[in-house]
Amino acid sequence: MKNLSIVLILILVRWFSTDVYAQTKVEKWGYFEVELRAAVTGNPFTDVRLEAIFYNDTDTFQINGFYDGEDSYKIRFMPQQKGRWDYVTRSNNAALDSKKGSFLCVSPKAGNRGSIVVKDTFYFSYKDSTPFYPLGTTAYGWVQQDESTRANSLKSLKNSPFNKVRFMILPHAPSGKELTQYPYEGSGKEWNFTRFNPEYFRKYEQYILELQSMGIQADIVLFHPYDKGIWGFDKMDKEEQYLYLNYVNARFGAFRNVWWSMANEFDLMTQRTMDDWDGYFRFFAEYDPYQHLRSNHNAGVWYDHTKPWVTHASIQSESWWRAPSLREEYQKPIIFDEFCYEGNGDARIVALNGDVIRHRFWLMTVLGAYGTHGEAYFQPNTNYQFFRQGGTFVGESVHQLKILDKVLDRIPGQLTPMGNGWRLNWILAGVPNEYYLYYLGEYQNSSWVLSELPQNQKFTVDLVNTISGDITRLDGQYAKGDEVSLPGEPYFAMILRRAEQ
Amino acid sequence: MKNLSIVLILILVRWFSTDVYAQTKVEKWGYFEVELRAAVTGNPFTDVRLEAIFYNDTDTFQINGFYDGEDSYKIRFMPQQKGRWDYVTRSNNAALDSKKGSFLCVSPKAGNRGSIVVKDTFYFSYKDSTPFYPLGTTAYGWVQQDESTRANSLKSLKNSPFNKVRFMILPHAPSGKELTQYPYEGSGKEWNFTRFNPEYFRKYEQYILELQSMGIQADIVLFHPYDKGIWGFDKMDKEEQYLYLNYVNARFGAFRNVWWSMANEFDLMTQRTMDDWDGYFRFFAEYDPYQHLRSNHNAGVWYDHTKPWVTHASIQSESWWRAPSLREEYQKPIIFDEFCYEGNGDARIVALNGDVIRHRFWLMTVLGAYGTHGEAYFQPNTNYQFFRQGGTFVGESVHQLKILDKVLDRIPGQLTPMGNGWRLNWILAGVPNEYYLYYLGEYQNSSWVLSELPQNQKFTVDLVNTISGDITRLDGQYAKGDEVSLPGEPYFAMILRRAEQ
Repeated sequence: MKNLSIVLILILVRWFSTDVYAQTKVEKWGYFEVELRAAVTGNPFTDVRLEAIFYNDTDTFQINGFYDGEDSYKIRFMPQQKGRWDYVTRSNNAALDSKKGSFLCVSPKAGNRGSIVVKDTFYFSYKDSTPFYPLGTTAYGWVQQDESTRANSLKSLKNSPFNKVRFMILPHAPSGKELTQYPYEGSGKEWNFTRFNPEYFRKYEQYILELQSMGIQADIVLFHPYDKGIWGFDKMDKEEQYLYLNYVNARFGAFRNVWWSMANEFDLMTQRTMDDWDGYFRFFAEYDPYQHLRSNHNAGVWYDHTKPWVTHASIQSESWWRAPSLREEYQKPIIFDEFCYEGNGDARIVALNGDVIRHRFWLMTVLGAYGTHGEAYFQPNTNYQFFRQGGTFVGESVHQLKILDKVLDRIPGQLTPMGNGWRLNWILAGVPNEYYLYYLGEYQNSSWVLSELPQNQKFTVDLVNTISGDITRLDGQYAKGDEVSLPGEPYFAMILRRAEQ
Repeated sequence: MKNLSIVLILILVRWFSTDVYAQTKVEKWGYFEVELRAAVTGNPFTDVRLEAIFYNDTDTFQINGFYDGEDSYKIRFMPQQKGRWDYVTRSNNAALDSKKGSFLCVSPKAGNRGSIVVKDTFYFSYKDSTPFYPLGTTAYGWVQQDESTRANSLKSLKNSPFNKVRFMILPHAPSGKELTQYPYEGSGKEWNFTRFNPEYFRKYEQYILELQSMGIQADIVLFHPYDKGIWGFDKMDKEEQYLYLNYVNARFGAFRNVWWSMANEFDLMTQRTMDDWDGYFRFFAEYDPYQHLRSNHNAGVWYDHTKPWVTHASIQSESWWRAPSLREEYQKPIIFDEFCYEGNGDARIVALNGDVIRHRFWLMTVLGAYGTHGEAYFQPNTNYQFFRQGGTFVGESVHQLKILDKVLDRIPGQLTPMGNGWRLNWILAGVPNEYYLYYLGEYQNSSWVLSELPQNQKFTVDLVNTISGDITRLDGQYAKGDEVSLPGEPYFAMILRRAEQ
């Protein structure tokens, strides 16, 4: 509360001084928060309308506020342009209305590159144009676990190769145990869907920002079909659904690492219609000022990813080999957000070993698609599986994917698949003239003749053992037509970089 | 020559006796051979026209003869109906004209089930309706090797799981060494394409019949692009091409285990047009009295397998996962007649290890397609690779595929893919109500709930370790909804058979 009060005081101070704005500095793609206080009468979540107009010389944003409990109302704004921003509030509550202020948006700190956006149809980049290669994992209910598990999850993610994590907002704890907090007022199976529990959402904020500080995208899953009568959070009526989306958008929207996933396995929520799903997308298309990425994850029936409000195809499918045709069909980035998890569970979907996971990630990479990992092994002496509760990774692929992460991190541009035709089927992607990534996969050929290279250009060659992660720089430089000796074992990759002249 | 003389005498004897036919018995789907002698004048391959009309009460076949050297002309006929058959010859050479005879077609011996035909659009069976599951291998030039290598090849094939072998008629010996025989008169690069060398073709006959006795289909490759100036056998003009096809058809057509493959990698023979390829197919469609299976194998450009004269798609592609869509597109059986070979060669196409080969075979099986093996490892102390010269198998998959052969051999009907949908993707094929084959592949799930089974029917369950070949019969019987415990390791299959009531 102390910090919040200070912010409030700052805001109040600024009100009376047109110069003081310079003292509140917010980095570009950071967020600025206005806190206002008003005694609650009625239902502060439904009766109070609050928004702020943020503006500079060229742009104006209308940003919704939200009630955060204890007479506190907040408005959060992510500036995307440097320089002075002013705002003025509007509310049907006089105590919140016509409040003014300003701040100075300054250069982003190292590591802050803005939100992820779609680039050149099939790819992603940060707002600052740095390419972004999603290498995600899954931890549906991790935020709702006990504190030490959450701490373990963060530590695990920090030490992992993953830069995106899918997780749910509404409770998801298939282990069935009681949660310490719920998103609404109520208990058991009786919930007041017009009264949020700010504490529940505040915890999410904390973790979304923790992920942000670790460079990890929060692929937030808004609805899911796994409640199944445990609590009934899937029983909101339509108005309540939009109240919820509005609250989430107002609270989390200003965080640059947020993605909106309408659902996990949306088609299993059989009580909702396709119009409902379209509606959720359209809500964000209209009311998310930052246009965070939007997707919808399927079980058996795929959402129509050609719809204009879908930013990228979020697909559950083990058919990684469909990547080229899915690109063709959807004309959007393709993320296999679930392609079976690493594990040895009862069900096929949680029963791939780490080698297969690793292999599929590399295949997707050269095919111009992106994969999302999930680990279904039970952690020792627990009923935790990382893809459900988070905790500690115990599988193999989390280690094996570090080299892929490293490789992706060093690509000098946008990795474009070049795998058409028999010889290069499933094998080659690159940045023309600059960089070529060959994934040799299951093949154990002992050489490769570099007929794909451009004329009159020399390249260095790194051999990558995708299992061990070892990288070996070959002696000398290679040109078109040269033959590279290979180890004659499967699961090697080969990286060619343009040599300095 | 002694045997041939005896045949001739028998034929002459029959001529004068309408009753003697009963003494010449030919099993159904065996072959009857007429030998006639006439002193050669001119070119016996082009100047002499010879055919026989074979007829019984209901059918008539016009069968071309061929010159077999040393004044000997032959006509071969495969009877497909039991009972008496008569024939009469026609020739522009009086010594060969109007010769008559007859024979008695009797029941086939055990192991003789007739030729392979397409059944129910996507499948194969023997003429007697027994299902046939192609499980092929490749030995392009094996007939042209030295005698001990040929003997080794036969022994290897006999002990192998393979029931089909692709090989060429025209010389193919990339090792470059001299052959002892050539198909035409001539030498070096000078050949008389109107004068065959009967000895060369006689050796083929011997081996086609040896394969037949081992239950192996001879998938004969008629043209290939690998001559590349070594001899020039790819330089025949169009008339010579048809002379060759006619000779091959006349000599080998009566052997029930013959398939006609127009070419290997037909599209690499860039001097031939699509009309040429269509023409070869149409030749066999018109002049092969037995309508042996017809196909055309590609490199980069696929032949249009929807053309009416194509009996099945013979495909070179590593994209095994396209099997369902290829079935849909071609409405014919799909054979992946080359999907990369087992080996550790320079080139990717000869560099899959045995595990990958085995895995792909099982995948194709449950996807309703068929695979063809090829081994590219060099045999110890030789420059022989089985897929080129034959010899001795040294790879792993030849052993690992024995269990697949055994499994295919015991399917009580036609194995139909049932793998639509997420849960059953790439996994299930069966004979409805009778038999179900689950290939669990890369997945290591520890159980499977049998929701696919029909109601009110019990099944036995065999677990198949597709690597070791071990089969374990589980205790008890299983019904719809029952859960099978699985080993929790990849590469298992599960076979369910309807239990006796």
